[in-house]
Amino acid sequence: MQTDYQNIPTATTGATVRIPAEPLRRALAAIFEAVDVPAEDATLAADALVAGERRGVSTHGVANLAPRYVNWIEEGYINPRPDWRVIRGRSGLRNIDGAQGMGIVVAAEVMRSTIETARETGIAMSVVHNSRHLGMAAYHAMLGLEHGMIGVCTTAVSPRMVPTFGREPRLGTNPIALAAPTGEEPPFVFDAATTTVAGNKLRISAKRGEEVPPGLMVHEDGSPVRAPAVPREPFRLAPLGGTPEASSYKGYGLAAIVDILGLGLSQASYGGQMSLGRGGHCLIAIDVDAVLPIDEFRAGMDRFIRYLRATPTAPGHDEVLVAGDPQHRAQAVNDVEGIPLPEAAVDWILRTGERFGLALPTLEATPNEQQ
Amino acid sequence: MQTDYQNIPTATTGATVRIPAEPLRRALAAIFEAVDVPAEDATLAADALVAGERRGVSTHGVANLAPRYVNWIEEGYINPRPDWRVIRGRSGLRNIDGAQGMGIVVAAEVMRSTIETARETGIAMSVVHNSRHLGMAAYHAMLGLEHGMIGVCTTAVSPRMVPTFGREPRLGTNPIALAAPTGEEPPFVFDAATTTVAGNKLRISAKRGEEVPPGLMVHEDGSPVRAPAVPREPFRLAPLGGTPEASSYKGYGLAAIVDILGLGLSQASYGGQMSLGRGGHCLIAIDVDAVLPIDEFRAGMDRFIRYLRATPTAPGHDEVLVAGDPQHRAQAVNDVEGIPLPEAAVDWILRTGERFGLALPTLEATPNEQQ
Repeated sequence: MQTDYQNIPTATTGATVRIPAEPLRRALAAIFEAVDVPAEDATLAADALVAGERRGVSTHGVANLAPRYVNWIEEGYINPRPDWRVIRGRSGLRNIDGAQGMGIVVAAEVMRSTIETARETGIAMSVVHNSRHLGMAAYHAMLGLEHGMIGVCTTAVSPRMVPTFGREPRLGTNPIALAAPTGEEPPFVFDAATTTVAGNKLRISAKRGEEVPPGLMVHEDGSPVRAPAVPREPFRLAPLGGTPEASSYKGYGLAAIVDILGLGLSQASYGGQMSLGRGGHCLIAIDVDAVLPIDEFRAGMDRFIRYLRATPTAPGHDEVLVAGDPQHRAQAVNDVEGIPLPEAAVDWILRTGERFGLALPTLEATPNEQQ
Repeated sequence: MQTDYQNIPTATTGATVRIPAEPLRRALAAIFEAVDVPAEDATLAADALVAGERRGVSTHGVANLAPRYVNWIEEGYINPRPDWRVIRGRSGLRNIDGAQGMGIVVAAEVMRSTIETARETGIAMSVVHNSRHLGMAAYHAMLGLEHGMIGVCTTAVSPRMVPTFGREPRLGTNPIALAAPTGEEPPFVFDAATTTVAGNKLRISAKRGEEVPPGLMVHEDGSPVRAPAVPREPFRLAPLGGTPEASSYKGYGLAAIVDILGLGLSQASYGGQMSLGRGGHCLIAIDVDAVLPIDEFRAGMDRFIRYLRATPTAPGHDEVLVAGDPQHRAQAVNDVEGIPLPEAAVDWILRTGERFGLALPTLEATPNEQQ
């Protein structure tokens, strides 16, 4: 019998407190070390999860993922000491066996190595199989930024998306992330599921009994949900586009591409054949300076972003945003005020520390604690 | 004063006749040669335009594009004998000056050269600036198929898309195409604008006075068109997603990525700074065999496609399609029955042939001529 890895409990409910990033990172790293993750990997994993919370991407942060990762490691679904390795490749393109490692660690390490390769070749790509959930795709894409590189990260996950004209899920939310360096402007960071919304957003609305707009889900019979409705599990997600007449085949096709790049190229296995996070990653690094002096590119990116921001606005809106803006702003707040965490997540950290007999750093809420 | 290259007349109206592909191709090649395109390039351009019509992509075929290309060449906007060249690069990544050549020729030639490089490096990418409209993006992506490669083609075009929360166009329809080889199944061929629909589809509905569904356009003030409406020029296209609440920021972000890859990387110029087709192409070749034996990949693709086709269907639909299916089916019909062309397009070919004193092949309608 197979565990349903989508339904492992998380710690996302309850009132929220704000915790500074640094002790949180150290506490998580200590917990990962306690379940046999090597120190360096534990630090990396903790940093990636805290990065998700800092950016306000709570679906891919500490509360939602840390308990799962620990669970997965204790159950043997994740190997805490993966010996990931290249099984086939050429100078710019490699196939990597993730050795059942934490995707969040494997993807980051593979991305770093891909970045090294791109210094030589200009572009490098790695596909990874037999890895696990990689957390926030943008984290790995953004690793290129400090090297003046464009980073791309996609990952195939277990089916939640119903193909256009179908009535059963066949593809994952399959996110695509791309980060591009800038000069004075915040980096361009795109990170989006190829469904209209991520499942977690529906879960939150379901808990609160709130209606969501049309175009996000399909009914059990596959027909699009065309009126506001309160989501009910199991969610059947519509591909980006929402309905066939608004081109949902495009979101469906993009999700298929993520499957092809991550799963098809790495092991010729696909879609329904895998469970959550048995991805299916594709990591690309593009060294800008190979084709254009990096300073020219940065200045061009700044002009581009300002050109987009300068778009006159529609009624009810006072600015046009650029990919990454909401997360950049969340981080500016969270880095000062502390990272907002559900109390249940802090409890989980403390209980887990006790269970392993760890002396964790104090996780004291910052003064401007919020509900 | 700048010519409005979007409004050059085409030959897309009137009754339709079916013409066999081969004489059509030869007639077009002769016309291109007459405006000083070298024989080999003329044949390539003719093939690419006929390929669009064969696949049923009439927005990027003979009727819509051939008169424009000839016009553009005669006006000096396109250089018929471009000496395109690499201006900077490393083994896997190159920046190419398209020398104002026909995009349809430059992109195909660059793609072939990129494919050659990918044999060595596994993945290769070329960005092209100072080129012109490249026709159907899928044509270039598909050039990799016979080499067992995944091909990608994106191109940045002039602004028609209104960014989320904005009210003026700032980005093009910026298509993304990806073609992946298969075994027995038809190849996977994704080719989609990052707007909900292409402008030409709205133009057809406008001419016919037909209503289009919500989510395709925004009003002049930037608010989404939320009810069925007859399109009116100038169309303001919504990003894929359609409305802010159905995640139009994702289509907007994808379009920005196409600008960054095609324009940003190649010349650090963007969006509103260019007119139609002064793109802005990005071409990528991925040699599958570098990471997985190609036969395993082909078999895996077949399984994947059959898995998607086997999705139980929604009410009112009897099959789930895979990217490229509609075009593959159109081609199967058109290759037997002849290519459906508006009479105005055939007239244009004949008149243009006369104008240049060419002895064109007979363009006789096939027996099963259609209205």
